[in-house]
Amino acid sequence: MRAALEVIAERGYRGASLAAVAERVGLTQQGLLHHFPTKEALLVAVLRDRDRWDAMPAGRLRLDLLASLVEYNAMRPAIIQTFSALLGESVTEGHPARAYFTERYTGVRAALAEVLRAEYGDRLPSGLTPERAAPLLVAVLDGLQYQWLLDPESVDMASAFRDFLTLLGENTG
Amino acid sequence: MRAALEVIAERGYRGASLAAVAERVGLTQQGLLHHFPTKEALLVAVLRDRDRWDAMPAGRLRLDLLASLVEYNAMRPAIIQTFSALLGESVTEGHPARAYFTERYTGVRAALAEVLRAEYGDRLPSGLTPERAAPLLVAVLDGLQYQWLLDPESVDMASAFRDFLTLLGENTG
Repeated sequence: MRAALEVIAERGYRGASLAAVAERVGLTQQGLLHHFPTKEALLVAVLRDRDRWDAMPAGRLRLDLLASLVEYNAMRPAIIQTFSALLGESVTEGHPARAYFTERYTGVRAALAEVLRAEYGDRLPSGLTPERAAPLLVAVLDGLQYQWLLDPESVDMASAFRDFLTLLGENTG
Repeated sequence: MRAALEVIAERGYRGASLAAVAERVGLTQQGLLHHFPTKEALLVAVLRDRDRWDAMPAGRLRLDLLASLVEYNAMRPAIIQTFSALLGESVTEGHPARAYFTERYTGVRAALAEVLRAEYGDRLPSGLTPERAAPLLVAVLDGLQYQWLLDPESVDMASAFRDFLTLLGENTG
């Protein structure tokens, strides 16, 4: 996993080949193919590995920790770029990462609805339910990443995300 | 352009080949390559063409028209899928669509800041300036598209976007 991430960080998603990863870990390409039959399968494994590291114990995540996570993400463009590029490809028919992302987003929306419920109860100050606010929270996280990756000088992802949290929390409908 | 969009709609971005587009318009692949040297160049041309059709005269766009545009987008998954897949790829180093998207987002943020200024003046009800709210508006538009493309049964893109407009407008800080 670490070798794969290093190769992706150096060459980008399009440039990262299974051959380069195999060389880095001292396997033949045949040997690597035994574990990961395709480049996409390897990338999905890297993403699942990232999820495992980023995961917080249920009930421990809070909105302010989410803001800190965005700040942390702004310091690791390589994995965010990999994630964003693969999310983009995943919406095409039959993509090997599609099931991973569909399942992941279902879980992330549910987890964030719980975070919002812990913070605000069954209604946010705006009147939105946690379940209706959660997809917006996910959309802002993903959407800001694209704008930031394309133009890091113009887009301050962390402070824009804090602006959104202010919108969510201060609204009085 | 129309032939390219048809082929993309039928086969998805990954499946759309220059050969298939050439066949559709009755050109040799060599003849098509004269106009579009790569598949990405053809796709960027399709996206620019879409921008031209969707563009509203300056000063005519309003937030409620933006909500209608999201409803309209929910009826044309093919072009939204193409756009989202290409946005994803564009964040990788040296991608031929990167300049298009970087430039497009600079323009879109500026245009939406003007829309917000026309609606709310120099401060939104939340206290955000139009320039700080614009990247959030763009992020929600893009981010909801990914969730909707992955799971159209679970994500109602148009009503989620209206929820976000309510957040932007009703906030009293």
